[in-house]
Amino acid sequence: MGNTFGHLFRITTFGESHGGGVGVIIDGCPPRLEISEAEIQLELDRRKPGQSKITTPRKESDICEIISGVFEGKTTGTPIAILVRNTDARSQDYDEMADKFRPSHADATYDAKYGIRNWKGGGRSSARETIGRVAAGAIAKKILKQIAGVEIIGYVKQIKDLESTVDPNTVTLEQVESNIVRCPDAECAEKMIDLIDQIRRDKNSIGGIVECVARNVPKGLGEPVFDKLEADIAKSVMSLPASKGFEIGSGFAGTLLTGSEHNDEYYIDDTGNIRTKTNRSGGIQGGISNGENIVIRVAFKPTATIGKEQKTVTRSGEETTLAAKGRHDPCVLPRAVPMVEAMVALVLCDHLLRHQGQCSLSGFD
Amino acid sequence: MGNTFGHLFRITTFGESHGGGVGVIIDGCPPRLEISEAEIQLELDRRKPGQSKITTPRKESDICEIISGVFEGKTTGTPIAILVRNTDARSQDYDEMADKFRPSHADATYDAKYGIRNWKGGGRSSARETIGRVAAGAIAKKILKQIAGVEIIGYVKQIKDLESTVDPNTVTLEQVESNIVRCPDAECAEKMIDLIDQIRRDKNSIGGIVECVARNVPKGLGEPVFDKLEADIAKSVMSLPASKGFEIGSGFAGTLLTGSEHNDEYYIDDTGNIRTKTNRSGGIQGGISNGENIVIRVAFKPTATIGKEQKTVTRSGEETTLAAKGRHDPCVLPRAVPMVEAMVALVLCDHLLRHQGQCSLSGFD
Amino acid sequence: MGNTFGHLFRITTFGESHGGGVGVIIDGCPPRLEISEAEIQLELDRRKPGQSKITTPRKESDICEIISGVFEGKTTGTPIAILVRNTDARSQDYDEMADKFRPSHADATYDAKYGIRNWKGGGRSSARETIGRVAAGAIAKKILKQIAGVEIIGYVKQIKDLESTVDPNTVTLEQVESNIVRCPDAECAEKMIDLIDQIRRDKNSIGGIVECVARNVPKGLGEPVFDKLEADIAKSVMSLPASKGFEIGSGFAGTLLTGSEHNDEYYIDDTGNIRTKTNRSGGIQGGISNGENIVIRVAFKPTATIGKEQKTVTRSGEETTLAAKGRHDPCVLPRAVPMVEAMVALVLCDHLLRHQGQCSLSGFD
Amino acid sequence: MGNTFGHLFRITTFGESHGGGVGVIIDGCPPRLEISEAEIQLELDRRKPGQSKITTPRKESDICEIISGVFEGKTTGTPIAILVRNTDARSQDYDEMADKFRPSHADATYDAKYGIRNWKGGGRSSARETIGRVAAGAIAKKILKQIAGVEIIGYVKQIKDLESTVDPNTVTLEQVESNIVRCPDAECAEKMIDLIDQIRRDKNSIGGIVECVARNVPKGLGEPVFDKLEADIAKSVMSLPASKGFEIGSGFAGTLLTGSEHNDEYYIDDTGNIRTKTNRSGGIQGGISNGENIVIRVAFKPTATIGKEQKTVTRSGEETTLAAKGRHDPCVLPRAVPMVEAMVALVLCDHLLRHQGQCSLSGFD
Repeated sequence: MGNTFGHLFRITTFGESHGGGVGVIIDGCPPRLEISEAEIQLELDRRKPGQSKITTPRKESDICEIISGVFEGKTTGTPIAILVRNTDARSQDYDEMADKFRPSHADATYDAKYGIRNWKGGGRSSARETIGRVAAGAIAKKILKQIAGVEIIGYVKQIKDLESTVDPNTVTLEQVESNIVRCPDAECAEKMIDLIDQIRRDKNSIGGIVECVARNVPKGLGEPVFDKLEADIAKSVMSLPASKGFEIGSGFAGTLLTGSEHNDEYYIDDTGNIRTKTNRSGGIQGGISNGENIVIRVAFKPTATIGKEQKTVTRSGEETTLAAKGRHDPCVLPRAVPMVEAMVALVLCDHLLRHQGQCSLSGFD
Repeated sequence: MGNTFGHLFRITTFGESHGGGVGVIIDGCPPRLEISEAEIQLELDRRKPGQSKITTPRKESDICEIISGVFEGKTTGTPIAILVRNTDARSQDYDEMADKFRPSHADATYDAKYGIRNWKGGGRSSARETIGRVAAGAIAKKILKQIAGVEIIGYVKQIKDLESTVDPNTVTLEQVESNIVRCPDAECAEKMIDLIDQIRRDKNSIGGIVECVARNVPKGLGEPVFDKLEADIAKSVMSLPASKGFEIGSGFAGTLLTGSEHNDEYYIDDTGNIRTKTNRSGGIQGGISNGENIVIRVAFKPTATIGKEQKTVTRSGEETTLAAKGRHDPCVLPRAVPMVEAMVALVLCDHLLRHQGQCSLSGFD
Repeated sequence: MGNTFGHLFRITTFGESHGGGVGVIIDGCPPRLEISEAEIQLELDRRKPGQSKITTPRKESDICEIISGVFEGKTTGTPIAILVRNTDARSQDYDEMADKFRPSHADATYDAKYGIRNWKGGGRSSARETIGRVAAGAIAKKILKQIAGVEIIGYVKQIKDLESTVDPNTVTLEQVESNIVRCPDAECAEKMIDLIDQIRRDKNSIGGIVECVARNVPKGLGEPVFDKLEADIAKSVMSLPASKGFEIGSGFAGTLLTGSEHNDEYYIDDTGNIRTKTNRSGGIQGGISNGENIVIRVAFKPTATIGKEQKTVTRSGEETTLAAKGRHDPCVLPRAVPMVEAMVALVLCDHLLRHQGQCSLSGFD
Repeated sequence: MGNTFGHLFRITTFGESHGGGVGVIIDGCPPRLEISEAEIQLELDRRKPGQSKITTPRKESDICEIISGVFEGKTTGTPIAILVRNTDARSQDYDEMADKFRPSHADATYDAKYGIRNWKGGGRSSARETIGRVAAGAIAKKILKQIAGVEIIGYVKQIKDLESTVDPNTVTLEQVESNIVRCPDAECAEKMIDLIDQIRRDKNSIGGIVECVARNVPKGLGEPVFDKLEADIAKSVMSLPASKGFEIGSGFAGTLLTGSEHNDEYYIDDTGNIRTKTNRSGGIQGGISNGENIVIRVAFKPTATIGKEQKTVTRSGEETTLAAKGRHDPCVLPRAVPMVEAMVALVLCDHLLRHQGQCSLSGFD
């Protein structure tokens, strides 16, 4: 069941790095939404490998096909199946990995769990799996935008120790997409690109932090107690490959403040709306959105697969070394940006429908 | 549906701070496990208010009653219902909150979502809701211990800027319980207690970090792709009141390392078992446990309800001020320790049963 | 997980015949619905034992307590817990059943599944378990009534070979409740009562058929493909104790017609509404309600526990005989009526919320 | 969410009659099971149109492709995606149905629910949707067979008023497949074939009853209280197109017996196993399998789409008539047999894994 996410707006993904393809089924999509393969492709293109000199040189066009659930350009309310065929499979790069486990990768644990493993390109643990998420996220984004004007914008906040300055309240998609590292702080972005390029030449890898903001989120999304909005967002992004940490609003730094420093005092704005003066809560209080911007951060570790030689073991239990062949991202962050956005969109869209289901019946009071 | 957690080992909690009581239904518990109210009470006593001078002075005995699912001291495989009646309800302390929203609390968002709110003691958003989780966690812990020898130990790692030194590989429950702040670093613990006591007298509050280790976790727990073990743990603890951040293994600090520095190299130990030399992965790789210790950290913000006067608004949309009456924890961390342990136990137990369900059928190969 | 039912309007039941009590958690109830223990009690009283000479003489008052989720007489949107304490537990009647399996009862299968069994009064397999369903059904009925004017009326259609004549389109609750067997055909009802009374004196039991109609159901409830409305209703009533068959609309008899005889032709009524001239579909087409009356029938076998001596075996595998002591219903039908109504209400209410969640967002087209 | 079925062995189907194709994702399949497209194709061929003169003359080859989840001929434990492309789409046959609702079909209700409808060939409501179920059922059957020797055999029990004589305890797949109507009673089968052929020429349709037996089902499958094994089977088959009724064991006829006549007395067989002398329970007691043969029956109405002229209405609310073009089954029963088998297999396989998950941990007692 681990390949299904969401309750009312529910996605199920499938596929491995090598084989017939990857994709997603979206069940519960509201009917009569206009959607096209071209719109979905836009997001997939932000995710795909081979975009720039700082991503993996693998060239996969990742062309999507809508198999079902859309009729004459509109959703029908029935399952939307989206398929992306695999191409450019240089599986010989992985021959060595049939037997050797990559350190800090999923090779050994998949083997321990299932007693079998599609070792070509990482199989199901490949980041290629996220194609289905990003495709579904494109639809979730469109619903959120059209129903409530929600904007979801992710960006690279930090690469290794290079920390950028970005205002989540004003950042635009254009700023994010203006450079190949997807950091809207242009000056910092250049340093990040140089650093990643250097690391790539060293056959090494680095990590960093993606920040993501959701603006214009309606008040009232999220549920007590287990499905708090931040809990579901945390799960969603911690399910992305290579993520190691999550925080919302003040996050870990918030532990250094006292309550009187940390609390977001309320005021009434010009329109009579209840607002908070500050936003250390990150847009969510008691697990429910309060109408302020939702701001989260996700830590991604350095890519596990590297060209440098490392100590490891074989399936049969012998110690050995491995210097990974194949074409890998020296840093997953630029391509992780659309993934994080997609996950946030999926959670918000599901909770929008759930809130609609429980709390929008009229007739009471 | 937001009050149910887990798939095979599934809990549903209910109850508010004031009213008939709080509790939990545990569905899917393996049969024939010996369990008693006394065992569950042990964990509830670690969670209950009024334990010490640094927790809220509210005195609630939180006595649990097993209503169903246990027969002659053993689980029957049918739902275990556990009820804790409410007592010591000084709801007059909350009269002011019927109308005024506490900053950074759930008051305003519950109102926005539901158009109604049980304002006595925070209602469903009260930390009292966690009683059901801790009771269920006691059973999950026992199953994990008995089936696989799993030990789950949480402790206060940091209070505000006071950071302790604790080795997750060797820390014991006795060390944790040896002082009222639940920090096994005795020297640091004293400073923490003094600081919390000072903050309490200031009618203010502080936060910090709980670290939790799960030892002897079998290899193979967790599922690709959304139900990665760390994703489910992240959700579980980010659903606790006041949590603002989560990390596993190297966490946010791991973003400062290169891949060759970060990767956990493999070796073969004396028993022929595949092990990692380091544990920056925090016991999980590719979403699946690798047999090393699972180590997580959770950031808790300072308690929102404080005695200091703050600016806020009323339900009817007028600006006002509030200095909260009532008896509140100046720091949730000591009582959060058993909550974090419970959530980790619930996730591991659910995944233990799920793994058993999918991967333990014999007859193939 | 088998003790939870529904997705958005979701109930979880607990409890055994003997022990602390039985009850239900309702999660996802719309907020601000007025509800009282008295309203729920009305339905429980229709279900309770000892109502009349043709039900079991056990006297259980089945008084319900709302533990949580209701504040000042209205639902808060958080889980509603309802508890009914057990009383009148003459468990000595069951001593023999600790060792002997009742034929066609759940004794042997629970033992085979769990290796343990609460043998007092049937434990979890007791019809007492349905208290939680009926309590939750009372709330579901009220929501359906208030939002859409839905009426759900069940009645005894047949006892053994005594078949009544009832028009589902016009039958009223008052007619149903006008006699102790809950058959609105007064003449047939008398014969049924006599027959059940005779069977009771013979220490034997009989079964029959409950028919249930839901009127004023909005068009559009139900989902392709697995959660067709009739599929979910079928599951709901086939989960009731002693049910052996289900049919909707023309049911089994419909297999004797040709398509041209069976199809419900459409017409436009005075208000411009699309209607069907006949209703062999039973109010559901393609798994989705069409606005006509939903009419279903459920077959209940004769009560398994009887006073007559039967051949059986012991837990330890020896052949023996059993003449059940204890106080049992000679016929479950009269008390099954509110159970069937409750299950239909739970399914419709869940699908009402699900439909609202997916299909009521405005902003498209 | 209505397109997902099962909990641990969970399938999600997608696709419409016309468009890119139909298929299924199977999540939770045990790893290391040998499976091939050829094995799945065998079952699909039993379901496909154009098999014989008594099925629709549409010629669809329904060739399946395994997209993911199988590596070197074995399942990997990750999602198995199976795709069947659409072919032979004579959508012009359906042009009239863009505007006219077929009586007793899903056309009008889909329109009422979603406000949009893929009217080509019935879209999602087409029986073509069952391809995914049958493909997944092929895998479920293999698991059940290999783990426990379970055999699932369905057959046509009745066509209109032609009732066959078949012993579910001994019937074989070869007998079922020995004629085109899939009725193992050869004499009755001939009459059925003649009748269907006659009805086909009349541009009319007929229904009937499929009976299905599952033999060698382990004791202990099924869960109290909502997920009783017969409740889940009822839902599974009542979700098939055109089904109107379900019964298990004695079913509706069982209501005519007294308890002493109906109860299945126990005895101890030669191997010391607890058995029942009769099987009116149909292999399930208290919702849990008892090791006897599970025997169910499903009523299917006559096909809704017929060539005879009928009264109906248009989308825009005008009364009209319709004589359906297109190529339709005069009787769905022969092709429904593999569908019923598949659904029973999916339920049993899911419960096998669920039972394994909850009840097979060792270490207690």
